[in-house]
Amino acid sequence: MMKIKLVLATAIACFCLNLQAIAQTKKPKKIDAKKVAKTMDVGMKGYEHFLKGINTGEWQPFFEMMTDDFTVFFPRGEFQGETKGKEKAMKFFKFVSGTFDKSFKVVEVLRITANETTIIFELRDEAVLRGNPYKNRVALSWDIRDDKIAAYREYFGSDGKSN
Amino acid sequence: MMKIKLVLATAIACFCLNLQAIAQTKKPKKIDAKKVAKTMDVGMKGYEHFLKGINTGEWQPFFEMMTDDFTVFFPRGEFQGETKGKEKAMKFFKFVSGTFDKSFKVVEVLRITANETTIIFELRDEAVLRGNPYKNRVALSWDIRDDKIAAYREYFGSDGKSN
Repeated sequence: MMKIKLVLATAIACFCLNLQAIAQTKKPKKIDAKKVAKTMDVGMKGYEHFLKGINTGEWQPFFEMMTDDFTVFFPRGEFQGETKGKEKAMKFFKFVSGTFDKSFKVVEVLRITANETTIIFELRDEAVLRGNPYKNRVALSWDIRDDKIAAYREYFGSDGKSN
Repeated sequence: MMKIKLVLATAIACFCLNLQAIAQTKKPKKIDAKKVAKTMDVGMKGYEHFLKGINTGEWQPFFEMMTDDFTVFFPRGEFQGETKGKEKAMKFFKFVSGTFDKSFKVVEVLRITANETTIIFELRDEAVLRGNPYKNRVALSWDIRDDKIAAYREYFGSDGKSN
Protein backbone atom coordinates (compact mmCIF):
# COMPACT_ATOMS: atom_id res chain seq x y z
CA MET A 1 0.00 0.00 0.00
CA MET A 2 2.82 2.39 0.94
CA LYS A 3 4.56 1.46 -2.28
CA ILE A 4 1.50 2.28 -4.38
CA LYS A 5 1.19 5.65 -2.63
CA LEU A 6 4.85 6.39 -3.35
CA VAL A 7 4.48 5.47 -7.02
CA LEU A 8 1.35 7.63 -7.26
CA ALA A 9 3.02 10.58 -5.55
CA THR A 10 6.01 10.29 -7.89
CA ALA A 11 3.75 10.10 -10.93
CA ILE A 12 1.83 13.20 -9.82
CA ALA A 13 5.07 15.07 -9.13
CA CYS A 14 6.42 14.22 -12.60
CA PHE A 15 3.13 15.26 -14.18
CA CYS A 16 3.22 18.62 -12.39
CA LEU A 17 6.84 19.22 -13.40
CA ASN A 18 5.90 18.55 -17.01
CA LEU A 19 2.88 20.88 -16.82
CA GLN A 20 5.14 23.55 -15.37
CA ALA A 21 7.71 23.06 -18.15
CA ILE A 22 5.02 23.28 -20.83
CA ALA A 23 3.43 26.38 -19.25
CA GLN A 24 6.81 28.09 -19.10
CA THR A 25 7.51 27.44 -22.77
CA LYS A 26 4.21 28.89 -24.05
CA LYS A 27 5.01 32.44 -24.96
CA PRO A 28 2.35 33.78 -27.32
CA LYS A 29 3.50 37.36 -27.09
CA LYS A 30 3.84 40.21 -29.55
CA ILE A 31 7.29 41.57 -30.24
CA ASP A 32 8.03 45.03 -28.84
CA ALA A 33 10.64 46.10 -31.41
CA LYS A 34 11.53 49.27 -29.50
CA LYS A 35 12.26 47.32 -26.35
CA VAL A 36 14.33 44.75 -28.24
CA ALA A 37 16.40 47.58 -29.77
CA LYS A 38 16.89 49.07 -26.30
CA THR A 39 18.01 45.72 -24.87
CA MET A 40 20.42 45.39 -27.80
CA ASP A 41 21.83 48.90 -27.25
CA VAL A 42 22.35 48.47 -23.52
CA GLY A 43 23.74 44.97 -24.07
CA MET A 44 26.26 46.12 -26.70
CA LYS A 45 27.42 48.99 -24.49
CA GLY A 46 27.80 46.48 -21.66
CA TYR A 47 29.72 44.13 -23.94
CA GLU A 48 32.29 46.85 -24.77
CA HIS A 49 32.74 47.63 -21.08
CA PHE A 50 32.94 43.90 -20.30
CA LEU A 51 35.75 43.40 -22.85
CA LYS A 52 37.57 46.41 -21.44
CA GLY A 53 37.26 44.98 -17.94
CA ILE A 54 38.47 41.52 -18.85
CA ASN A 55 41.39 42.92 -20.88
CA THR A 56 42.59 45.67 -18.59
CA GLY A 57 41.10 45.00 -15.15
CA GLU A 58 39.35 48.39 -15.38
CA TRP A 59 35.88 47.23 -14.52
CA GLN A 60 34.36 50.52 -13.34
CA PRO A 61 32.35 51.28 -16.54
CA PHE A 62 30.92 47.73 -16.47
CA PHE A 63 30.21 47.84 -12.74
CA GLU A 64 28.28 51.10 -13.22
CA MET A 65 25.89 49.25 -15.53
CA MET A 66 25.03 46.60 -12.91
CA THR A 67 21.80 46.68 -10.93
CA ASP A 68 22.24 46.35 -7.16
CA ASP A 69 20.61 42.91 -7.25
CA PHE A 70 22.89 41.76 -10.09
CA THR A 71 23.39 37.99 -10.07
CA VAL A 72 25.99 35.78 -11.73
CA PHE A 73 25.59 32.13 -12.61
CA PHE A 74 28.94 30.53 -13.53
CA PRO A 75 29.61 26.91 -14.59
CA ARG A 76 32.74 25.86 -12.73
CA GLY A 77 35.57 26.68 -10.33
CA GLU A 78 35.69 28.90 -7.24
CA PHE A 79 32.59 30.88 -8.27
CA GLN A 80 30.53 27.91 -9.49
CA GLY A 81 26.78 28.39 -9.22
CA GLU A 82 25.03 31.58 -8.16
CA THR A 83 26.74 34.73 -6.92
CA LYS A 84 24.13 37.16 -5.60
CA GLY A 85 24.37 40.94 -5.35
CA LYS A 86 26.60 43.58 -6.95
CA GLU A 87 29.26 43.48 -4.20
CA LYS A 88 30.02 39.78 -4.59
CA ALA A 89 29.68 39.95 -8.39
CA MET A 90 32.38 42.64 -8.55
CA LYS A 91 34.74 40.24 -6.77
CA PHE A 92 33.91 37.58 -9.36
CA PHE A 93 34.75 39.83 -12.33
CA LYS A 94 37.99 41.04 -10.76
CA PHE A 95 38.90 37.39 -10.16
CA VAL A 96 38.20 36.56 -13.84
CA SER A 97 40.37 39.33 -15.28
CA GLY A 98 43.09 38.37 -12.79
CA THR A 99 43.24 34.78 -14.07
CA PHE A 100 43.65 35.95 -17.70
CA ASP A 101 46.24 38.70 -17.03
CA LYS A 102 45.25 40.83 -20.08
CA SER A 103 45.49 37.87 -22.49
CA PHE A 104 41.75 37.36 -23.22
CA LYS A 105 40.73 37.68 -26.89
CA VAL A 106 37.36 37.14 -28.58
CA VAL A 107 38.42 35.45 -31.84
CA GLU A 108 34.90 35.12 -33.26
CA VAL A 109 31.44 36.37 -32.41
CA LEU A 110 29.22 33.48 -33.47
CA ARG A 111 25.82 34.98 -32.69
CA ILE A 112 24.21 37.84 -30.81
CA THR A 113 20.56 37.12 -30.04
CA ALA A 114 18.30 39.52 -28.17
CA ASN A 115 14.66 39.90 -27.23
CA GLU A 116 12.91 42.45 -24.99
CA THR A 117 14.65 41.35 -21.79
CA THR A 118 17.69 39.24 -22.62
CA ILE A 119 20.77 39.42 -24.84
CA ILE A 120 22.96 36.38 -25.49
CA PHE A 121 26.47 36.47 -26.91
CA GLU A 122 27.96 33.28 -28.37
CA LEU A 123 31.71 33.76 -28.57
CA ARG A 124 34.87 31.82 -29.40
CA ASP A 125 37.69 32.98 -27.14
CA GLU A 126 41.37 32.38 -26.52
CA ALA A 127 43.61 33.39 -23.67
CA VAL A 128 46.38 32.38 -21.31
CA LEU A 129 44.75 31.13 -18.12
CA ARG A 130 47.14 31.21 -15.16
CA GLY A 131 50.05 30.59 -17.55
CA ASN A 132 48.35 27.85 -19.60
CA PRO A 133 46.90 28.11 -23.12
CA TYR A 134 43.12 28.39 -22.99
CA LYS A 135 40.47 28.12 -25.72
CA ASN A 136 36.73 27.99 -25.26
CA ARG A 137 33.30 28.73 -26.62
CA VAL A 138 30.91 30.53 -24.33
CA ALA A 139 27.33 31.70 -24.27
CA LEU A 140 26.88 34.79 -22.10
CA SER A 141 23.23 35.45 -21.34
CA TRP A 142 22.46 38.84 -19.78
CA ASP A 143 19.14 40.12 -18.52
CA ILE A 144 18.66 43.84 -19.22
CA ARG A 145 16.41 45.98 -17.03
CA ASP A 146 16.00 49.67 -17.93
CA ASP A 147 19.52 50.87 -18.75
CA LYS A 148 21.25 48.28 -16.62
CA ILE A 149 22.42 44.68 -16.64
CA ALA A 150 20.58 42.63 -14.00
CA ALA A 151 21.92 39.11 -14.53
CA TYR A 152 24.89 37.32 -16.10
CA ARG A 153 24.63 33.60 -16.88
CA GLU A 154 27.68 31.95 -18.43
CA TYR A 155 27.71 28.61 -20.26
CA PHE A 156 30.72 26.71 -21.65
CA GLY A 157 30.58 25.25 -25.17
CA SER A 158 33.89 23.41 -24.93
CA ASP A 159 36.41 21.97 -22.48
CA GLY A 160 38.78 24.94 -22.19
CA LYS A 161 41.19 23.39 -24.69
CA SER A 162 39.43 23.91 -28.02
CA ASN A 163 36.95 26.33 -29.52
CA MET B 1 65.59 44.69 -35.29
CA MET B 2 63.97 41.24 -35.65
CA LYS B 3 62.46 41.73 -32.21
CA ILE B 4 60.91 45.08 -33.16
CA LYS B 5 59.44 43.52 -36.31
CA LEU B 6 57.94 40.69 -34.25
CA VAL B 7 56.44 43.10 -31.74
CA LEU B 8 55.02 45.19 -34.59
CA ALA B 9 53.57 42.15 -36.37
CA THR B 10 51.96 40.97 -33.11
CA ALA B 11 50.53 44.42 -32.44
CA ILE B 12 49.05 44.59 -35.95
CA ALA B 13 47.60 41.08 -35.63
CA CYS B 14 45.95 41.97 -32.29
CA PHE B 15 44.59 45.19 -33.77
CA CYS B 16 43.09 43.27 -36.74
CA LEU B 17 41.52 40.68 -34.44
CA ASN B 18 39.96 43.49 -32.42
CA LEU B 19 38.67 45.25 -35.54
CA GLN B 20 37.15 41.95 -36.67
CA ALA B 21 35.49 41.43 -33.29
CA ILE B 22 34.08 44.97 -33.31
CA ALA B 23 32.86 44.67 -36.94
CA GLN B 24 31.12 41.41 -36.11
CA THR B 25 29.34 42.92 -33.14
CA LYS B 26 27.94 45.96 -35.00
CA LYS B 27 24.45 44.98 -35.98
CA PRO B 28 22.46 48.11 -36.77
CA LYS B 29 19.51 46.22 -38.24
CA LYS B 30 15.77 46.66 -38.07
CA ILE B 31 13.72 43.95 -36.41
CA ASP B 32 11.63 41.80 -38.74
CA ALA B 33 8.88 40.85 -36.26
CA LYS B 34 7.28 38.37 -38.66
CA LYS B 35 10.54 36.51 -39.14
CA VAL B 36 11.17 36.46 -35.38
CA ALA B 37 7.70 34.98 -34.81
CA LYS B 38 8.42 32.35 -37.47
CA THR B 39 11.75 31.42 -35.86
CA MET B 40 9.95 31.17 -32.52
CA ASP B 41 7.21 28.93 -33.98
CA VAL B 42 9.62 26.57 -35.73
CA GLY B 43 11.89 26.54 -32.70
CA MET B 44 9.07 25.68 -30.28
CA LYS B 45 7.83 22.88 -32.53
CA GLY B 46 11.41 21.60 -32.69
CA TYR B 47 11.70 21.83 -28.90
CA GLU B 48 8.62 19.59 -28.42
CA HIS B 49 10.05 17.03 -30.85
CA PHE B 50 13.45 17.30 -29.18
CA LEU B 51 11.96 16.55 -25.73
CA LYS B 52 10.05 13.62 -27.20
CA GLY B 53 13.25 12.28 -28.76
CA ILE B 54 15.33 12.60 -25.62
CA ASN B 55 12.58 11.04 -23.48
CA THR B 56 11.47 8.17 -25.70
CA GLY B 57 14.20 7.64 -28.29
CA GLU B 58 11.62 8.42 -31.00
CA TRP B 59 13.60 11.03 -32.86
CA GLN B 60 11.87 10.86 -36.26
CA PRO B 61 9.74 14.05 -35.87
CA PHE B 62 12.85 15.97 -34.78
CA PHE B 63 15.01 14.48 -37.54
CA GLU B 64 12.42 15.56 -40.12
CA MET B 65 12.97 19.17 -39.04
CA MET B 66 16.73 19.03 -39.70
CA THR B 67 18.32 20.54 -42.80
CA ASP B 68 20.67 18.21 -44.69
CA ASP B 69 23.65 20.37 -43.67
CA PHE B 70 22.59 20.32 -40.00
CA THR B 71 25.57 20.77 -37.67
CA VAL B 72 25.99 20.07 -33.96
CA PHE B 73 28.49 21.69 -31.65
CA PHE B 74 28.72 19.85 -28.31
CA PRO B 75 30.94 20.73 -25.30
CA ARG B 76 32.36 17.42 -24.10
CA GLY B 77 32.60 13.64 -24.40
CA GLU B 78 32.56 11.37 -27.45
CA PHE B 79 30.86 13.96 -29.65
CA GLN B 80 32.89 16.96 -28.45
CA GLY B 81 33.27 19.74 -31.04
CA GLU B 82 31.57 19.87 -34.41
CA THR B 83 29.46 17.07 -35.92
CA LYS B 84 28.67 17.91 -39.54
CA GLY B 85 25.73 16.73 -41.65
CA LYS B 86 22.34 15.21 -40.82
CA GLU B 87 23.55 11.58 -40.94
CA LYS B 88 26.19 12.02 -38.24
CA ALA B 89 23.94 14.33 -36.22
CA MET B 90 21.26 11.62 -36.03
CA LYS B 91 23.82 9.29 -34.45
CA PHE B 92 24.62 11.98 -31.91
CA PHE B 93 20.98 12.41 -30.83
CA LYS B 94 20.39 8.66 -30.58
CA PHE B 95 23.54 8.44 -28.46
CA VAL B 96 22.21 11.20 -26.16
CA SER B 97 18.82 9.60 -25.55
CA GLY B 98 20.59 6.28 -25.00
CA THR B 99 22.71 7.67 -22.15
CA PHE B 100 19.65 9.05 -20.33
CA ASP B 101 17.40 5.98 -20.77
CA LYS B 102 14.10 7.95 -20.61
CA SER B 103 15.07 9.75 -17.39
CA PHE B 104 15.66 13.26 -18.79
CA LYS B 105 13.50 16.05 -17.30
CA VAL B 106 13.48 19.79 -17.87
CA VAL B 107 12.83 21.10 -14.35
CA GLU B 108 12.85 24.79 -15.30
CA VAL B 109 12.86 26.83 -18.49
CA LEU B 110 14.95 29.85 -17.51
CA ARG B 111 14.71 31.84 -20.75
CA ILE B 112 13.72 31.45 -24.39
CA THR B 113 15.33 34.13 -26.54
CA ALA B 114 14.82 34.39 -30.29
CA ASN B 115 15.62 36.74 -33.15
CA GLU B 116 15.13 36.34 -36.92
CA THR B 117 17.57 33.44 -37.28
CA THR B 118 18.31 31.92 -33.90
CA ILE B 119 16.41 30.62 -30.87
CA ILE B 120 18.14 29.90 -27.57
CA PHE B 121 16.70 27.81 -24.74
CA GLU B 122 18.20 28.13 -21.26
CA LEU B 123 17.11 25.11 -19.26
CA ARG B 124 17.70 23.46 -15.90
CA ASP B 125 17.60 19.70 -16.31
CA GLU B 126 17.85 16.52 -14.27
CA ALA B 127 18.32 12.91 -15.30
CA VAL B 128 20.03 9.64 -14.60
CA LEU B 129 23.13 9.49 -16.82
CA ARG B 130 24.37 5.94 -17.32
CA GLY B 131 23.05 5.04 -13.86
CA ASN B 132 24.35 8.14 -12.08
CA PRO B 133 22.37 11.17 -10.88
CA TYR B 134 22.82 14.08 -13.25
CA LYS B 135 21.89 17.77 -12.94
CA ASN B 136 22.86 20.55 -15.28
CA ARG B 137 22.02 23.90 -16.80
CA VAL B 138 22.26 24.16 -20.55
CA ALA B 139 21.90 26.76 -23.26
CA LEU B 140 20.72 25.23 -26.54
CA SER B 141 21.20 27.61 -29.46
CA TRP B 142 19.50 26.61 -32.70
CA ASP B 143 19.70 28.32 -36.08
CA ILE B 144 16.38 28.24 -37.94
CA ARG B 145 16.25 28.38 -41.75
CA ASP B 146 12.83 28.38 -43.44
CA ASP B 147 10.84 25.70 -41.59
CA LYS B 148 13.87 23.72 -40.49
CA ILE B 149 16.58 23.62 -37.85
CA ALA B 150 20.03 24.12 -39.40
CA ALA B 151 22.35 24.13 -36.39
CA TYR B 152 22.42 23.00 -32.75
CA ARG B 153 25.01 24.48 -30.38
CA GLU B 154 24.98 23.25 -26.80
CA TYR B 155 26.62 24.96 -23.83
CA PHE B 156 26.89 23.73 -20.22
CA GLY B 157 26.10 26.08 -17.36
CA SER B 158 27.18 23.71 -14.62
CA ASP B 159 29.35 20.66 -13.90
CA GLY B 160 26.73 17.93 -14.35
CA LYS B 161 26.18 17.72 -10.58
CA SER B 162 24.15 20.82 -9.83
CA ASN B 163 21.74 23.09 -11.64
